[in-house]
Amino acid sequence: MPEHAVTEAFDVVDLIRAKRDGGELSTAEIDWLVDAYTRGVVADEQMSAWAMAVFLRGMRPREIADLTAAMIASGERLDFSSVGKPTVDKHSTGGVGDKITLPLAPLVASFGVAVPQLSGRGLGHTGGTLDKLESIPGWRARLTNGEFLEQLGGVGAVIAAAGAGLAPADGKLYALRDTTGTVECIPLIASSIMSKKIAEGTASLVLDVKYGSGAFLQDPARGRELAETMVRLGKDAGVGTVALLTNMHTPLGLAIGNANEVAESVEVLAGGGPADVVELTVALAREMLALAGRPDADVEAALADGRAMDTWRRMIRAQGGDPDAALPIARESETIRADRDGVLVAQPALPYGVAAWRLGAGRARKEDPVQHAAGIDLHAKIGDTVRAGDPLLTLRTDEPARFARALEALEGAWTIADPDGRVAVDDGGPLVLDRIA
Amino acid sequence: MPEHAVTEAFDVVDLIRAKRDGGELSTAEIDWLVDAYTRGVVADEQMSAWAMAVFLRGMRPREIADLTAAMIASGERLDFSSVGKPTVDKHSTGGVGDKITLPLAPLVASFGVAVPQLSGRGLGHTGGTLDKLESIPGWRARLTNGEFLEQLGGVGAVIAAAGAGLAPADGKLYALRDTTGTVECIPLIASSIMSKKIAEGTASLVLDVKYGSGAFLQDPARGRELAETMVRLGKDAGVGTVALLTNMHTPLGLAIGNANEVAESVEVLAGGGPADVVELTVALAREMLALAGRPDADVEAALADGRAMDTWRRMIRAQGGDPDAALPIARESETIRADRDGVLVAQPALPYGVAAWRLGAGRARKEDPVQHAAGIDLHAKIGDTVRAGDPLLTLRTDEPARFARALEALEGAWTIADPDGRVAVDDGGPLVLDRIA
Repeated sequence: MPEHAVTEAFDVVDLIRAKRDGGELSTAEIDWLVDAYTRGVVADEQMSAWAMAVFLRGMRPREIADLTAAMIASGERLDFSSVGKPTVDKHSTGGVGDKITLPLAPLVASFGVAVPQLSGRGLGHTGGTLDKLESIPGWRARLTNGEFLEQLGGVGAVIAAAGAGLAPADGKLYALRDTTGTVECIPLIASSIMSKKIAEGTASLVLDVKYGSGAFLQDPARGRELAETMVRLGKDAGVGTVALLTNMHTPLGLAIGNANEVAESVEVLAGGGPADVVELTVALAREMLALAGRPDADVEAALADGRAMDTWRRMIRAQGGDPDAALPIARESETIRADRDGVLVAQPALPYGVAAWRLGAGRARKEDPVQHAAGIDLHAKIGDTVRAGDPLLTLRTDEPARFARALEALEGAWTIADPDGRVAVDDGGPLVLDRIA
Repeated sequence: MPEHAVTEAFDVVDLIRAKRDGGELSTAEIDWLVDAYTRGVVADEQMSAWAMAVFLRGMRPREIADLTAAMIASGERLDFSSVGKPTVDKHSTGGVGDKITLPLAPLVASFGVAVPQLSGRGLGHTGGTLDKLESIPGWRARLTNGEFLEQLGGVGAVIAAAGAGLAPADGKLYALRDTTGTVECIPLIASSIMSKKIAEGTASLVLDVKYGSGAFLQDPARGRELAETMVRLGKDAGVGTVALLTNMHTPLGLAIGNANEVAESVEVLAGGGPADVVELTVALAREMLALAGRPDADVEAALADGRAMDTWRRMIRAQGGDPDAALPIARESETIRADRDGVLVAQPALPYGVAAWRLGAGRARKEDPVQHAAGIDLHAKIGDTVRAGDPLLTLRTDEPARFARALEALEGAWTIADPDGRVAVDDGGPLVLDRIA
């Protein structure tokens, strides 16, 4: 008899086969699977086969809740009850030009609410909040638990690296999914996000679930399913959870990269910035403040009168950053201009995300560095009228050899049509499609 | 950019996703995948995710042919043209008590036909031909290429271990499938079997494709699909191929194990033996001899007059074995008796295979040894009339601690009903259901 038949509660091949054949795993089976994977008893090639079976066969809500609970149980849980303020966090499923966390966290904190934002780094074409903030000289992502709690009680807003102690099983499974074609799977996405957020200990949570060409899930119906799945998981775990279903059909704002996204965020905190970035920041801030017991907070006023900016500056300083320091500038740039007069009727997000990534703003492997100054600045957004010779976008990188493959990714990334209205503007509809509570 | 984007023709994640989403891989993609997996560029966890996607999404005939060709190309090909006899091989998809290769190879070779039988070892509940033969004192499975060819030209029958040089990609994938719940998949089974048989260089091939409770595939329709897939692969590769679709609903013969299966095979070669073992041996021998240009060979006569036995003895001696040596006997045995009078109406194969395996006749891991004397002797077969107190089966092992779990596996493994015919005998129908050519 193999040794594991004696010492282990289940045989992983049985569990893979059960899911493969469309069956349902019990709570005990899911607990064991996650624990055994964390311990290394279940091998990567077994877990990836199981993940592919989940991808193609799905999981029932009870199984997703069990998977989430098992991943939470694989590590530590934080506790913010000592902070003395309501806590509310936000998570975005990721998009192109999505810097919303940067203005949002200080904006919400400026109302006396604690925003414990544990973030990750970017992998692939969607950027990472920590990568963006690290373009600020001196700023550091890694805090001790003591530093984190002190800043949360004082400044109110903290954006920091999640420690490896939160849901380590999820960390291991997430990395595996990335290399085995099992990313775009609602049960696995939902349990991954929610296990970390629940383990983090926030009292409430607002989810920005994106759909469209620049998002994980392109179809709004699938985005809605993901949002509903996560809201249910949050509520079942006692975390007040609301989701906005938002449009990632075209890039958010004008900046796609790292340092340029910080600069655009600062514009929003100064009361300016692109209309779509402001709209989404305000919509998410209202949801977060409502969950924190401040439904009537005047969010626009905090942007206009500098309160949000003050909190931003204190937040950056608390983590060693200099909010007044100059941001890095790329060594090389290349500007692309309109070849005709007309209206920008199509500007799909994905090619811009891929191009910024290829310019060096993102990483292909988790151990790679990013170029903080690399990225794309848009000079025109979808719906804008342009004239031949107007700049459309500027590509920036420290390594000019990267331009060619970035330009390849941008093939067909914009369409200029006659301004007679016969070609409709393909912007994917409203920025906030729905609210799921 | 990651290094593999520069040096490799494809990205494995793209190929996994394509198959996951129901797409078809090109010949170049399949060639690259198999080659990159053999080189270790594609990791086990990627290949297992791909295998699970194949399991659930299937492959088109062209893809299966490409996969087979790529696995053949991963290693060496043998050539039997110097042997000076027609060559014909046989492969069984595996069952409980399936010792047919042992009497079959010398029987066919006794007609001047070369039978180059490269076999494997058992894993799980189906036994391995080499494990059975190794219960004969002195017999060795491993031959040099020179020894193999000399024996093939002389004795005509060789049953030996396949070298690691034949289709090594299949060897690696087969081991991976075994631990990742991706075994029972027609495209993967068919390409695995046929890549080895085509690389082995036989001119023609008879397949014994089993269905029923003791087989890989329980449903005869799936067995037929596997048979048709393999016959097509053989013909496309220029190997004359015929398949018999045979019933593995109940154990073959009375012996399940290693040494006891050798003894039963010798009974068949002596003109006796259980009717089902004789019937299947004769049916497969006729197909093999027809493919080798001897459609009128009198197979029964060769069993009755000792020609097949002579070839068996020469075959065993050529590989160092003593055909007259006593076979090993297990230290412990336990006999189970009928608790009532009646007819044995059910005797499903699987529990007997599992019980024999647990007694020590098979192995759980490929590096484990087997007990040559362990196994089960049946005293009654399905359809037999028994009286209370008659022996039904004897369990044999060198380690009495194994009896308990073997008996657990045998729970419900036989049903004795009143002989009034109201409970039908559940034998799964005829032994040979169909012939696919």
